[in-house]
Amino acid sequence: MSYEHKLAGLGVTLPPPPTPVANYVPAVRVGELLFLSGVLPSRNGRLLLTGKVGDGVSVEQGQEVARMALLNALAMVRAELGSLDRVIRVVKMVGYVASAPGFCDQPQVLNGASDLLVAVFGEEGRHARVAVGVAELPRQAPVELDLILQVKS
Amino acid sequence: MSYEHKLAGLGVTLPPPPTPVANYVPAVRVGELLFLSGVLPSRNGRLLLTGKVGDGVSVEQGQEVARMALLNALAMVRAELGSLDRVIRVVKMVGYVASAPGFCDQPQVLNGASDLLVAVFGEEGRHARVAVGVAELPRQAPVELDLILQVKS
Amino acid sequence: MSYEHKLAGLGVTLPPPPTPVANYVPAVRVGELLFLSGVLPSRNGRLLLTGKVGDGVSVEQGQEVARMALLNALAMVRAELGSLDRVIRVVKMVGYVASAPGFCDQPQVLNGASDLLVAVFGEEGRHARVAVGVAELPRQAPVELDLILQVKS
Repeated sequence: MSYEHKLAGLGVTLPPPPTPVANYVPAVRVGELLFLSGVLPSRNGRLLLTGKVGDGVSVEQGQEVARMALLNALAMVRAELGSLDRVIRVVKMVGYVASAPGFCDQPQVLNGASDLLVAVFGEEGRHARVAVGVAELPRQAPVELDLILQVKS
Repeated sequence: MSYEHKLAGLGVTLPPPPTPVANYVPAVRVGELLFLSGVLPSRNGRLLLTGKVGDGVSVEQGQEVARMALLNALAMVRAELGSLDRVIRVVKMVGYVASAPGFCDQPQVLNGASDLLVAVFGEEGRHARVAVGVAELPRQAPVELDLILQVKS
Repeated sequence: MSYEHKLAGLGVTLPPPPTPVANYVPAVRVGELLFLSGVLPSRNGRLLLTGKVGDGVSVEQGQEVARMALLNALAMVRAELGSLDRVIRVVKMVGYVASAPGFCDQPQVLNGASDLLVAVFGEEGRHARVAVGVAELPRQAPVELDLILQVKS
């Protein structure tokens, strides 16, 4: 089944892909590997939410913005490849969660992104994952995602 | 010489591999590259130690749990490949150390894992390494390891 | 045009490559991918500046040391490959910025490294980038860079 159809069937519309504002690019492909730049939960250049999870930002809000950040990543993948249907496998996601002191449920937050990956790509969406809690993220984003995918070359 | 024999000769028995509790998998292979999920110093789902290095957790304890986390990684590699003997090379390890304010000896902590990699794999265990100090890790783990290996395809 | 000539034309002389002081190596190659160890803004084993950006270290200083760290990375690439002219593409840079509480301009800091990559490698220097703010870096470095390059095999 087409991943594009799957996404549409979930009622999800991808946002316009975020555009880098400095000397880097959204994605670089080497052979079958597609390396994405870090994605934030932004829309049209503005963050949907700022702050740290565990202080002002709840786990549920963190999950929601992780999902929002992932939609940006998917938009970047589509812009790069022409279609999500050129994805072979989601390889790896490193998820950085801006964490208040003592907050250690980063994995739960990232499930907001992981669950959507599996909803769209099925078994091929199941990825290796690294969950990290960090002090500060760009523009006070609560979550940043770093993804590697295997794609048709 | 067989890496499995080398490991046995060191008197090391691998634990059961940790099992992901969400929509991700322990490892994803693309060609010769094997990407692992982040590993914590856990056994049977429970952390062996919690806290931050430099505050409650000593450098020596940090090294010990880095070694424990690495054993989980090796268990995941064996589960994925059938045998450690299918490893060609340890490519890269990013080591995240939960660090108390002012603690900056992350490299020393990670030597607990790096030294074991070289003890088992010899020259092929010598990897590119990135040492990072972070605010919080999942479930208050003191150390998390993120590994990439080259394996027989 | 030769990247080595481009570098020389910029008036840049690379420092001696930093040497790992533990059981890891500066770089590991797998096929066309070259994975580097984390680089700090050091010269001859000593950091050029310590501290956190946003508290004692300014954004401008952060940019300058990001550039200094990148020169170490280029020195490692040249030592590994014999010449920068064997680089095909800069694939990805994860930049860790030791950040004072509330500091969230990590991307600006990393431009010090990204801009130099593009000055040397042109379009092939434009990389996927991930900017992260962290609590502590080895030896109180303000910046650490983690690079992946595509190189001639």
